[in-house]
Amino acid sequence: MWTFDAPPFDYWRRTYGWAPDQKWLDHVRLASVRLPNCSASFVSARGLVMTNHHCGRSCTASASPPDSNYVATGFSAGTLADEKKCAGLYVDQLQSIENVTARVRGAVTGTTPAQQDAQRSAVISQIQTECQQQTQMTCQVVTLYQGGIYSLYRYRRFNDLRLVMAPEESIAFFGGDPDNFTYPRYDLDLTLLRVYENNQPYQPTDYLKWSPAGAMENDLVFVVGNPGSTGRLNTVAQMEYLRDIGYPATLATYKRLLAIYPTLEKTDTSAARRYQNDIFGIANSQKAVTGYRAGLLDTLSMAKKRAFEQELRARIAANPQLQAQYGGAWDAIARAQSELATFSPQLRYYGFGGNSQLLQLAAGLVRVATEAGKPDAERLTQYRGPGLENIKRAIVAPNPIDTAYERLAIAAQLRAAQGELPANDPFLRIALNGRTPEQAAADLVRNTRITDPAVRQQLVTGGLPAITASTDPLIVFARAVDPLARTQLSRATALNAIIASNSEKIGQAMFATYGTNLPPDATFTLRISDGLVKSYPSNGTIAPYKTTFYGLYERSAAFDNKDPFKLPQRWVDRKANLDMSTPYDFVSTNDIIGGNSGSPVINRNAEVVGLVFDSNIEGVSNRFIFTTEVGRTVSVSSRAITEALRKMYDGSRIADELQGR
Amino acid sequence: MWTFDAPPFDYWRRTYGWAPDQKWLDHVRLASVRLPNCSASFVSARGLVMTNHHCGRSCTASASPPDSNYVATGFSAGTLADEKKCAGLYVDQLQSIENVTARVRGAVTGTTPAQQDAQRSAVISQIQTECQQQTQMTCQVVTLYQGGIYSLYRYRRFNDLRLVMAPEESIAFFGGDPDNFTYPRYDLDLTLLRVYENNQPYQPTDYLKWSPAGAMENDLVFVVGNPGSTGRLNTVAQMEYLRDIGYPATLATYKRLLAIYPTLEKTDTSAARRYQNDIFGIANSQKAVTGYRAGLLDTLSMAKKRAFEQELRARIAANPQLQAQYGGAWDAIARAQSELATFSPQLRYYGFGGNSQLLQLAAGLVRVATEAGKPDAERLTQYRGPGLENIKRAIVAPNPIDTAYERLAIAAQLRAAQGELPANDPFLRIALNGRTPEQAAADLVRNTRITDPAVRQQLVTGGLPAITASTDPLIVFARAVDPLARTQLSRATALNAIIASNSEKIGQAMFATYGTNLPPDATFTLRISDGLVKSYPSNGTIAPYKTTFYGLYERSAAFDNKDPFKLPQRWVDRKANLDMSTPYDFVSTNDIIGGNSGSPVINRNAEVVGLVFDSNIEGVSNRFIFTTEVGRTVSVSSRAITEALRKMYDGSRIADELQGR
Repeated sequence: MWTFDAPPFDYWRRTYGWAPDQKWLDHVRLASVRLPNCSASFVSARGLVMTNHHCGRSCTASASPPDSNYVATGFSAGTLADEKKCAGLYVDQLQSIENVTARVRGAVTGTTPAQQDAQRSAVISQIQTECQQQTQMTCQVVTLYQGGIYSLYRYRRFNDLRLVMAPEESIAFFGGDPDNFTYPRYDLDLTLLRVYENNQPYQPTDYLKWSPAGAMENDLVFVVGNPGSTGRLNTVAQMEYLRDIGYPATLATYKRLLAIYPTLEKTDTSAARRYQNDIFGIANSQKAVTGYRAGLLDTLSMAKKRAFEQELRARIAANPQLQAQYGGAWDAIARAQSELATFSPQLRYYGFGGNSQLLQLAAGLVRVATEAGKPDAERLTQYRGPGLENIKRAIVAPNPIDTAYERLAIAAQLRAAQGELPANDPFLRIALNGRTPEQAAADLVRNTRITDPAVRQQLVTGGLPAITASTDPLIVFARAVDPLARTQLSRATALNAIIASNSEKIGQAMFATYGTNLPPDATFTLRISDGLVKSYPSNGTIAPYKTTFYGLYERSAAFDNKDPFKLPQRWVDRKANLDMSTPYDFVSTNDIIGGNSGSPVINRNAEVVGLVFDSNIEGVSNRFIFTTEVGRTVSVSSRAITEALRKMYDGSRIADELQGR
Repeated sequence: MWTFDAPPFDYWRRTYGWAPDQKWLDHVRLASVRLPNCSASFVSARGLVMTNHHCGRSCTASASPPDSNYVATGFSAGTLADEKKCAGLYVDQLQSIENVTARVRGAVTGTTPAQQDAQRSAVISQIQTECQQQTQMTCQVVTLYQGGIYSLYRYRRFNDLRLVMAPEESIAFFGGDPDNFTYPRYDLDLTLLRVYENNQPYQPTDYLKWSPAGAMENDLVFVVGNPGSTGRLNTVAQMEYLRDIGYPATLATYKRLLAIYPTLEKTDTSAARRYQNDIFGIANSQKAVTGYRAGLLDTLSMAKKRAFEQELRARIAANPQLQAQYGGAWDAIARAQSELATFSPQLRYYGFGGNSQLLQLAAGLVRVATEAGKPDAERLTQYRGPGLENIKRAIVAPNPIDTAYERLAIAAQLRAAQGELPANDPFLRIALNGRTPEQAAADLVRNTRITDPAVRQQLVTGGLPAITASTDPLIVFARAVDPLARTQLSRATALNAIIASNSEKIGQAMFATYGTNLPPDATFTLRISDGLVKSYPSNGTIAPYKTTFYGLYERSAAFDNKDPFKLPQRWVDRKANLDMSTPYDFVSTNDIIGGNSGSPVINRNAEVVGLVFDSNIEGVSNRFIFTTEVGRTVSVSSRAITEALRKMYDGSRIADELQGR
């Protein structure tokens, strides 16, 4: 995951006997764009933008006419005039990167972490504002190496995007939750958008050409996109905390939440369908976090990580000046993590969690009333600046409250609290007061009136006096719990600040020791990752480097065409048109993570050979320690995209444009 | 793996709400036949017999005309007259089972294990001979529950078998070694033979009809066949020995042997192809033994096994009479296993192993000379009765000796011995005598003359004087090592006799406690196993209950049609004929093991829905502890067989016969 201002030319040449030059890099940088939550790229002379189906989903949904749902039915614009405006969507194109480390560091003169934090935020804000005013661009200061480098990224923003083509979700996400994060895979996870300027297709200076051959086994390929977040530079102590405290708690929460739906189904047979998206979302997070944790449970990987940390510490220790500056950082983090572990259950259960909307609303009401009376800088972080008004608006928004779900969610949360907190815990006394968790939850949900948006509006308008006078059981509950929660929160905030400032030291120490030979952790900014198209050992045999359309029909037939392996009708009706042996999805050893969705996969000629959409399950554990034995990036083949456009979606116009015909 | 004389009617009814009756069982028993190394069944009114491609391989090879190889090209007889005689092949049909436990046990009156062994062998021989004389049938006394029951099995033997149809090996064993023991799978592992009597197709009283529908998900299905060998009744101590001593040594040997071939290739580029079968065989054994060991390494399964053993021992201990008879057996076995562990390297390395033909020939020559002079009962076991003459014949047979391979195999064996035996070990002194293993192996192979069959014949004819006088370096080596080997062998034999007699006690104790509720370990005799057609969690997603022909073309295309995923030309040329969605292979939870190859899978109507040919990798570990979470039997679907016969092999005549048209 190399940054574009520190490309590892030597490493590439050493590894592959070839490296791109600066012109190549500038070209692919400008051909790449970033969506608010995904990656994408210009893939035609007339501004076609390629990304994943799941990245374009909101546009596809909002572009649908009232009587139709393009997410389910798919959409393909027959002409330019048929292309549908995506409300509110934009893409950013990275123009330049400037190192502003000296300026940021120069402004941080305080002695406490809190002072330093504030100074750092202030100077970063200032740099961004100045840049925007001077260049009219979107500017962002990116913290790399946990503060080892600060870089100013300037973007050109394009605001007029239109939907050109999206297949049915059932083919884009074929295999659904079971196949998610796995391989072999058979997904056409594609959306094609087009950038317009002045109501005309935008003609980008740089776009990626389409490879005629696609990806072959052992090909060198690059992924260019915006990986969201990795934890590769975390210390061993941080990883152990996640492995032993953080992730187990998260996984326990997912398990509790997933157990709610079968209970709901018992009284409401439509529940399963209604909650399908929620269940899917949680199950997916569960798979991901299980994967992250698997990486940390792998003793071999952790031993490597430990050895790396020991080597770095030894190098630092060998230089008295570096040792004085950075030497204490690892132990400081370890101590803070240990202390965080001591009150992890309190922090979690006092915090109005458990996926209950009502608990969140009650806490919000109480806190809005309290925080509004304070100077901005003394408020809880989220209530500062425009935060307060945003939270108020969210509280009074007339969203429906699912009380059947709420009762079970609160009960599950309280029962879990009862299992983890000591019997005499003040939160349990407030929450239960002699009742079972189920009774307490039923009482709260039955008797509260904050389910009514008008009541919430009254409480917001009434301010602190209204909150103090309220006898609503949820407000009473939140009022009593809030002080407990704040105590834990401020302890955690202080400890996390220690971790952050020491992480920054470690980032600086790493950068001082290894420079850009070690890429920084992912920051949802543009990176380039090299790799090979490559099969791997799986399930006692070999997972092939690619799949074909035969495999799509196989997997559907093997499951008797049942959900989530049911083919869209179009793919049944037009089957005979298709060249079945067309490469469909393929795998490569490139290093990616969430945020890379929609990234182009390109060959040495900077031609598109694929479209990244997932990792295999073995690759999920790469969050902390990257290995290429079995972890793989999963992409849609460029050849599948044009074949599907031509044979399934009456999209020869679009395929011709991609292929430059 | 239930025996046909103790069918678990109650268990079946309880589990499936249905059970076959005695008539059904008699019918499927008589419709089943046993090949010398596999299972098979009558599947038409005119004596068609269905088994696996790998079970009929020797027949398919020997039936090929000189200029052709049906194993590679496939074969399909257009008419009855085209069906090709299988030289030497026979099938056995089980006629009856008689419990002869009382007679066997009555004859065993000795007090030492050796006496008891001899008496048991004698009475079993006598029962078999009497039976054969009285009934003209093939008779076998089968030891069940390690001596808990002795059963006399009577078989009718059919000697005239002819080859009707066998597909190309590349489709029968599609995916080759990588896909072996795995699933999803795409193999047509089929041979069709026909039993003739008096030169006419035999018309069996009982044969299995063909299911029109095939197997559907969650169907109850039965496998009827001859599982070879399981270790389910082994004690924990026996399993731990295999896990920690036996299997690791075996796996180390496989690894050493596999390392030989790449070395050979360096000087002989044709080596890889020449040794392909050997490499394949070893790699397959490696996969299987790794799987067996995986079952023993699974802590949960072992904990269950331990709990089962504790319960059995507690039940025995609660009954003073049983405790006196059987109570000491577990500890006696554990002690013997511990002692075996102390000289495991000596036993292995003194034993002329390492896959060297020359070491085996040298040892055979020395031992034939020595054993010939002793009374039969005092000889080494394999040299008793007709054994001596068989071994002589094998020694003088003019098989070519691959000296390049031999040098490397002996060197590898000696180097491994050097790594495991103490430096002052007498074997090492004899074998190396100051040389490196490579030098010693080169000397032995270069200077021996026993590579010449005539020299071996002279040594056999010359008897002990010729052996004693020989200066051939391999004979000198074998003469010196043999006394060392015999010492270890007799220690091991004595300990194994203790294990066997105590295993018999445990078998009896189990049978006394649980009766036939617990099926006996596999003995390559007819068993019936129940199960469900069922998908299972695999690789982060779901492995479907079946595959289809789409999947065959997918897997071939995904590997660019490269070996071992290359399709026979017929399957390329005639692809358009095929109904691609025809079920191809499928999985079920039936309990099988080696020997079950070729077993029919039948439904409640005793109709053929499939043909067993493998386990998935997860099922391989069922050798010791059977579970159905993820272990599966893999079968060819009956529908794939008729579809392939009609569309690929011009075999409508045969398909019609199977389908009773």
